[in-house]
Amino acid sequence: MDVEEATARVPMRWVGPIKIGGKVVDGEVEVPLATYESPLWPSVGRGAKMSRLSERGILATLVDERMTRSVLLEADDAETAVAAVRQLNDDLPELRRLVSERSRFAELVTMNHQIAGNLLFLRLEFTTGDASGHNMATLAADVLLTYIVASVPGLRYSSVSGNYCTDKKATAVNGILGRGKNVVAELLIPREVVEERLRTTARKVADLNVRKNLIGTTLAGGIRSANAHFANMLLAVYLATGQDAANIVEGSQGITHAEDRDGALYFSTTLPNLIVGTVGNGKGLDFVDANLTRMGCRESREPGANARRLAAIIAATVLCGELSLMAAQTNPGELMRAHLRLERATPEKEAV
Amino acid sequence: MDVEEATARVPMRWVGPIKIGGKVVDGEVEVPLATYESPLWPSVGRGAKMSRLSERGILATLVDERMTRSVLLEADDAETAVAAVRQLNDDLPELRRLVSERSRFAELVTMNHQIAGNLLFLRLEFTTGDASGHNMATLAADVLLTYIVASVPGLRYSSVSGNYCTDKKATAVNGILGRGKNVVAELLIPREVVEERLRTTARKVADLNVRKNLIGTTLAGGIRSANAHFANMLLAVYLATGQDAANIVEGSQGITHAEDRDGALYFSTTLPNLIVGTVGNGKGLDFVDANLTRMGCRESREPGANARRLAAIIAATVLCGELSLMAAQTNPGELMRAHLRLERATPEKEAV
Amino acid sequence: MDVEEATARVPMRWVGPIKIGGKVVDGEVEVPLATYESPLWPSVGRGAKMSRLSERGILATLVDERMTRSVLLEADDAETAVAAVRQLNDDLPELRRLVSERSRFAELVTMNHQIAGNLLFLRLEFTTGDASGHNMATLAADVLLTYIVASVPGLRYSSVSGNYCTDKKATAVNGILGRGKNVVAELLIPREVVEERLRTTARKVADLNVRKNLIGTTLAGGIRSANAHFANMLLAVYLATGQDAANIVEGSQGITHAEDRDGALYFSTTLPNLIVGTVGNGKGLDFVDANLTRMGCRESREPGANARRLAAIIAATVLCGELSLMAAQTNPGELMRAHLRLERATPEKEAV
Amino acid sequence: MDVEEATARVPMRWVGPIKIGGKVVDGEVEVPLATYESPLWPSVGRGAKMSRLSERGILATLVDERMTRSVLLEADDAETAVAAVRQLNDDLPELRRLVSERSRFAELVTMNHQIAGNLLFLRLEFTTGDASGHNMATLAADVLLTYIVASVPGLRYSSVSGNYCTDKKATAVNGILGRGKNVVAELLIPREVVEERLRTTARKVADLNVRKNLIGTTLAGGIRSANAHFANMLLAVYLATGQDAANIVEGSQGITHAEDRDGALYFSTTLPNLIVGTVGNGKGLDFVDANLTRMGCRESREPGANARRLAAIIAATVLCGELSLMAAQTNPGELMRAHLRLERATPEKEAV
Repeated sequence: MDVEEATARVPMRWVGPIKIGGKVVDGEVEVPLATYESPLWPSVGRGAKMSRLSERGILATLVDERMTRSVLLEADDAETAVAAVRQLNDDLPELRRLVSERSRFAELVTMNHQIAGNLLFLRLEFTTGDASGHNMATLAADVLLTYIVASVPGLRYSSVSGNYCTDKKATAVNGILGRGKNVVAELLIPREVVEERLRTTARKVADLNVRKNLIGTTLAGGIRSANAHFANMLLAVYLATGQDAANIVEGSQGITHAEDRDGALYFSTTLPNLIVGTVGNGKGLDFVDANLTRMGCRESREPGANARRLAAIIAATVLCGELSLMAAQTNPGELMRAHLRLERATPEKEAV
Repeated sequence: MDVEEATARVPMRWVGPIKIGGKVVDGEVEVPLATYESPLWPSVGRGAKMSRLSERGILATLVDERMTRSVLLEADDAETAVAAVRQLNDDLPELRRLVSERSRFAELVTMNHQIAGNLLFLRLEFTTGDASGHNMATLAADVLLTYIVASVPGLRYSSVSGNYCTDKKATAVNGILGRGKNVVAELLIPREVVEERLRTTARKVADLNVRKNLIGTTLAGGIRSANAHFANMLLAVYLATGQDAANIVEGSQGITHAEDRDGALYFSTTLPNLIVGTVGNGKGLDFVDANLTRMGCRESREPGANARRLAAIIAATVLCGELSLMAAQTNPGELMRAHLRLERATPEKEAV
Repeated sequence: MDVEEATARVPMRWVGPIKIGGKVVDGEVEVPLATYESPLWPSVGRGAKMSRLSERGILATLVDERMTRSVLLEADDAETAVAAVRQLNDDLPELRRLVSERSRFAELVTMNHQIAGNLLFLRLEFTTGDASGHNMATLAADVLLTYIVASVPGLRYSSVSGNYCTDKKATAVNGILGRGKNVVAELLIPREVVEERLRTTARKVADLNVRKNLIGTTLAGGIRSANAHFANMLLAVYLATGQDAANIVEGSQGITHAEDRDGALYFSTTLPNLIVGTVGNGKGLDFVDANLTRMGCRESREPGANARRLAAIIAATVLCGELSLMAAQTNPGELMRAHLRLERATPEKEAV
Repeated sequence: MDVEEATARVPMRWVGPIKIGGKVVDGEVEVPLATYESPLWPSVGRGAKMSRLSERGILATLVDERMTRSVLLEADDAETAVAAVRQLNDDLPELRRLVSERSRFAELVTMNHQIAGNLLFLRLEFTTGDASGHNMATLAADVLLTYIVASVPGLRYSSVSGNYCTDKKATAVNGILGRGKNVVAELLIPREVVEERLRTTARKVADLNVRKNLIGTTLAGGIRSANAHFANMLLAVYLATGQDAANIVEGSQGITHAEDRDGALYFSTTLPNLIVGTVGNGKGLDFVDANLTRMGCRESREPGANARRLAAIIAATVLCGELSLMAAQTNPGELMRAHLRLERATPEKEAV
């Protein structure tokens, strides 16, 4: 096959700038979005405009960061598993040393566990610098697993990953114990901007959020999630910045919360499981490097600071797209009209 | 910005062929995978080899297909909502007529509902030919919503989407009521192939599947899902075939089930929420068109048949990658060695 | 052991009356609550008072009713399972006949299915008159299972229950496909009653409901549920009316929705999985018989009507207790003060 | 109303003895079960017999214990919430002192948190001696809440409970972070006992557990749960020992894991959220006192030891009932035959 065939080319546009405040990012930032769904660009663009029309812009706050891998061990019985957990917690300094010895950037933060019958799931949690850290965590887990099986009596290898990590699956554990960056983005939009630019009211957006994102998702049997379309924005930024986009599965689990504050709209998006990095697989591609540079995520900073910046920008981007869609859905027919106007004719569209 | 900046270029390779049987596909098919994670190619390739070493290959079975949109209505009270549902069910022929009138391909199949307090969520279910059908369903929902609000007393518009659809969110409703293609892929691998090529045993794979995919995911608080990494394969085929890859969120919810059959390995992957199309957004790009053509999904067939073929191929691809990873994880250290061998050196890897 | 030892004696009180409207119940009804948690009585009592101070009282609406059992079958492969489902749907009249032949009250309503690999889960749905219907459904499932295994090629018995029913487990399927009575209770409380009697405002209750019941439960990883304490009221009425109280597990999955309507409080509790009966196990005990009689659930009505009446009364009771607790929690310290005042001194209390 | 009306009398029987080993209980223990479902008695009794026919009996292991309450605070913004969490963690010794000052038995173990937008959920975790600890935890939370609101700038009271506790709701958080006793019960049954007494094989039970409890529950959209009927046994022991039986909602979330070990059956039940106490509400009733005494849970031991003993006994009881039902369901028709034989004729039964 020739070179042409060896590349999937996803249309990409720069959107923004988004006005962002907070401890991680402070200023206006443009964001690249790679997607086959062209209406996403103006949608996020409209949200970005709202950020610029608000006094403080979007406040992005980093709550936590870590990368995890859960190894799976078979114990003689549950009593043995409990004793093993106790021994390993006592042994934490040695486990930390083993990890540091093998990696310049990975550090073992802590360990959680689950015991089911005779099975022991150890959830190893690391900081991994500017890398999203999948490979660092797996390699470190491999090292620790070898040590554990050799040093703890009554434990045997069952798997280097026991799905209690949890990677690329929508579960509850990541949000509760932490995995990836946990970021909150918040925006307070003045009443007149809500009414004139978003053509809606704060009350309408807050009520729709309750009915659709909270009650609707609950009725659908969602898990730790209440939002309209985080996945769309995440996919587009992930592809544009060389992330492993399969991580949108857990990344898209997050909460949209809106309040009517005397006519002003408080709108927030909480993303507890945002897996991102500025080094590692995919980050070496030319266009990715250029994008990250333009986003200010290639600066000389302490390890982890570039990745945190990227996470904050992504959370702000997600807020922009979420706000725009939610505002549109408060008005009958607006969403469809926007789609029909924005998309080029396609076979499906003609078909409709 | 110039053209170079306007494209995200995701590395792509053809893998296979995969040997597939069943009513939808019968023969050997190659599959394009676009991904930043290069170890995925040999991993799926190894699974494809297993399909060719098994007598019947992978049996792919289509269980169901439909696309959905849930509109959200505010009723005077729950009694009014119940009466409205009854009236609309009586009115189903007229609702169907309205949809057919506006669309050549969309057909209203059926309707489900949820009532919470005074809120009514109507889940409209359509067949949409060869399109994945997001836009068709939204347009049809828009048409129906206008009609419903006008003709049913005591109902008011609340949103064109009430998150009970559910699009790009991991929930339970899609698998229970159906959304996208529901496809099962099954493979029976002879004992000697399992032992010599996968370097494991059927018992080991079946036990690991129970411990990791079923128990591990349950402990993690997963929802209607038990697999190792469906998301990876889905993302790669979705990008290569112009799908809206944000649909991997619900697409990755599925079940891996394995059995030891006297030493032979029965291995299956069930994907109840596979959203795919061969026409629509993204399908007109040159490389997508070429890929779909090479996969045999651009033939002249009855409406929907090309999309069903694509769904069956994707399910088989998912099986290949899932099998390969699961077999690797039965052996200590194998996964890490494979990664280290296969990936080119990257900043993250050097960092480790 | 003597007779004294052979009975657990749970303290019981009558609470109310509750003012109830709607098609199922219309009037004032007292409710017996059996519980070791004495603060529940005044709590529900306060809610009952609110119902009497509101013009229409609590509107109770029955949305659906059915009892289910999911049998589990092993098929040769998924293709065989799909063919079996098709054959069984064609055969529905015969399946219905088989059920009616064995039971005076059970009727097969419909059938749902799930296919995972080669496994087929058939969810059989029945109406069961005034019985909650566990045994009727199991017996009918047993009869159908024997017939199915004998008449459908390629299917084998795996279990009479495959947990897709789902009995006494918290899952999503019951609310989505229906199990037990689905009942909505709604109350509109005038502004002055909210302020003077509940010492709060409609806005405060609505906001707390969003934060605690919707967002809080979502963060906790709840499944199809958003309420404060449905389980407490359910347990107490279930014990007092001879129900199988283990069904509070799924019964307690439900939605509280509140709105501020110009200062008046719209408050609703939706209970989609309420398993109740007025005949069957436990209903023959003297005190149960007396309680059901006093509640008006022993009248001569068409089959099912007494059970529907009981379901509506229970939903209204749940609303009363939920409203009271939610109102209390809007005020700092009120809940604790109420508990300390109402409970008799106990070892735990003294310990505190 | 007279005294007769003021008591719900639930039929109760003693079952066993169950042979239990491990660090918490060692010996044979009889268990009282109060239930309207009479077939439960022989079912648990059969399991108890299996424990006596196995060499070590049921090994009961306590993994963890704590009681929780999550308070809900409104922060100025997420940044303020993050700062508050940091300050409160620094302040942990003072928070602990405040709790100890007010309670002889409650101790603040640790604190977890969730931040969604501007909302802060603080999950306070306590040990509570022999009490299940609901009231202790609420009172302690009330004390801490008052202190927190007064001492941390930018935080306001929203609710004393934010549903992230989580009490009497089925969620993921309790099993992941811990709530109540976390107990594992394990039993290894010799091959001949499995075959002759349970009339099944280890392979059949292990396979059924995979298909029904793991896959079936997953398909049903269960949350952190995979068992057949934990709720039944829990309800019966809870009523007989004066527990707040509404806690079976989260108590019934647990995992059954079975393995075929060369024909012997390894069978385990893991109950991570078992809320029990031997002092507090309901424990002062005469029959409860007598029951706890007979179970050996009224001895003079260090605080908490009686409650741990009770938890271990309950976990073993759950294993007995679960084992019996699972074994029965491996054989077509056995469950129904047992029910028909064991239950007295009731209106429902006659109706069938």
